[in-house]
Amino acid sequence: MSKENRTEIGDLGEFGLIEKIAALVVPTQASTIKGIGDDAAVFRATDEKYTLLSTDMLLEGIHFDLSYMPLQHLGYKAVAVNVSDIAAMNGIPRQLTVNLGLSNRFSVEAVEALYKGIAAAADAFDVDVVGGDTTASPSGLVISVTVFGETTPDQVVYRSGANENDIVCVTGDLGAAYMGLQVLEREKQVYMTQPDMQPDLEKYNYIVGRQLRPNARMDIVHELAEKGLRPTSMIDVSDGLASDLFHLCKASGLGVSVYEDKLPIDAQTYETAAEFGIDPNTCAINGGEDYELLFTISQDDFEKIKNHADIHTIGYMHAPEKGRVLVTRNQAVVELKAQGWKHF
Amino acid sequence: MSKENRTEIGDLGEFGLIEKIAALVVPTQASTIKGIGDDAAVFRATDEKYTLLSTDMLLEGIHFDLSYMPLQHLGYKAVAVNVSDIAAMNGIPRQLTVNLGLSNRFSVEAVEALYKGIAAAADAFDVDVVGGDTTASPSGLVISVTVFGETTPDQVVYRSGANENDIVCVTGDLGAAYMGLQVLEREKQVYMTQPDMQPDLEKYNYIVGRQLRPNARMDIVHELAEKGLRPTSMIDVSDGLASDLFHLCKASGLGVSVYEDKLPIDAQTYETAAEFGIDPNTCAINGGEDYELLFTISQDDFEKIKNHADIHTIGYMHAPEKGRVLVTRNQAVVELKAQGWKHF
Repeated sequence: MSKENRTEIGDLGEFGLIEKIAALVVPTQASTIKGIGDDAAVFRATDEKYTLLSTDMLLEGIHFDLSYMPLQHLGYKAVAVNVSDIAAMNGIPRQLTVNLGLSNRFSVEAVEALYKGIAAAADAFDVDVVGGDTTASPSGLVISVTVFGETTPDQVVYRSGANENDIVCVTGDLGAAYMGLQVLEREKQVYMTQPDMQPDLEKYNYIVGRQLRPNARMDIVHELAEKGLRPTSMIDVSDGLASDLFHLCKASGLGVSVYEDKLPIDAQTYETAAEFGIDPNTCAINGGEDYELLFTISQDDFEKIKNHADIHTIGYMHAPEKGRVLVTRNQAVVELKAQGWKHF
Repeated sequence: MSKENRTEIGDLGEFGLIEKIAALVVPTQASTIKGIGDDAAVFRATDEKYTLLSTDMLLEGIHFDLSYMPLQHLGYKAVAVNVSDIAAMNGIPRQLTVNLGLSNRFSVEAVEALYKGIAAAADAFDVDVVGGDTTASPSGLVISVTVFGETTPDQVVYRSGANENDIVCVTGDLGAAYMGLQVLEREKQVYMTQPDMQPDLEKYNYIVGRQLRPNARMDIVHELAEKGLRPTSMIDVSDGLASDLFHLCKASGLGVSVYEDKLPIDAQTYETAAEFGIDPNTCAINGGEDYELLFTISQDDFEKIKNHADIHTIGYMHAPEKGRVLVTRNQAVVELKAQGWKHF
């Protein structure tokens, strides 16, 4: 291939690359309902049952650093982030497969530690590990997980279903996983220069836990079903609130207003951000890896969630002409910016 | 972890590792029919419909060498080897996902070439590409493909269903992919010492094609269905005839006799093996990567396949006490040995 024809992936961006790929592989199967472009693919199993399929790959040196990520937590996280994609479709995970690439520095005991985490997550989210491929890797550790789930035509939620005036909700709190990562990176630097120092992570236990062992909010999926509330659109917060909210806006053809004073931020995230000299709102808006559910509901459904301790209303959807904006604490309206995660 | 507790994966072996993993993740979902231990996992979608899920990961430097593997062929192969696992369950592939890990030496054009191969295979095997994850990789290229397929309780074929006196059948020919690899490796060595030499691969076109762009035998799955023939057990030949036959023997609790003079070997494989000073029968028995279907049928079904040009009867199943043996051309009975592929 000549140099003149070379386009860097970084120049096109991850989402630009996905668009190019999607144009090359247009679905033709009658059973394919939704292909590329949502948290999971959707197929028709029967008229009453939809199948969900989602997959994610984690690579050492890109997505995790084994110098502070215990293998058991890594196994748990690899499952949780995939289950989270099924949750984001309002589905129930059933089975999953795990592909592992292992360099020769990994022992049988290391694989068992990883699988203990995988098994713990499978148990927590009530899903079976049914197969996969275990192979050698030339260098680092590679984990590719695929989760198979189910939902119904009545229950499935896409990114594209939001309507004007829908309320934007987010579960849990935001920015903690990002601040946890900052703490772990700082301790790693300290350790590398002073190997005798034992890091004291006790005061950061919540945010470090959010980074190392995130949860998938299946509890929320079940609670919403019990309340008879189907969100109009949904996504999980993996790239960061702003970036993921933009996916809902784009797919639904709408704009959004988010209120800064409504952003749910844990006290530990707040204090640690202050310690690091970072704006906690920026952590909440662009942090990523929270794996909370971000969804929109009809105003008619507000009563069903208004007293829920773990569901926060942070804004509302509106016409695209009104933009994607953040209403700050002092009532200034500023453009919402997505930094997201750039791996390329 | 202390050094004393370290067991090397190579000492345990790939299959030993899989057994350890399987013990850690015991299925509990009512819909899981078959977990780890066959070509694909099997779930109950409805009483009339079974879901199949299979996954494989290919890593640069382990499974392929980009110095002679064109990206377009690699994309095709990554899909074909997964579709082959669905074929081995007597199922029909419907959808697939692709996870890609790309180091910065890969351009957008390289990803497009890879996806053109993926799209060509998706078209050939009538399956939709419905999603996946594209991420950075610290070094080489990683491709993880998951295929979702369908079958019925009446049609599904496991490794475990063979009976005594069943006939062992294999499709196509064996050992060609292995000899193709030998040719490519030799040409690579020549090229590295004499970069001006243009390799002449014309006389090796068939075997090189078998290595670079293998087929999945969906044609056979459809033909058997048309003939009303359900194999009693089935697997695809990925590790090599002997190794894969041993999986059928172990799962079915049986022994096997294979006749050396019945092994289907293409003339080009035969001639190239002679050129390299390798026994062509060894190529056929231990070569691997042929992605042909290896299956057993009841003797009552022999009439249905006896005139099929591309299905070869190579032996029969019997009591385990009679061993797993090869009957040589001069009627000697020797133990069948599986070398398989050792990645660890």
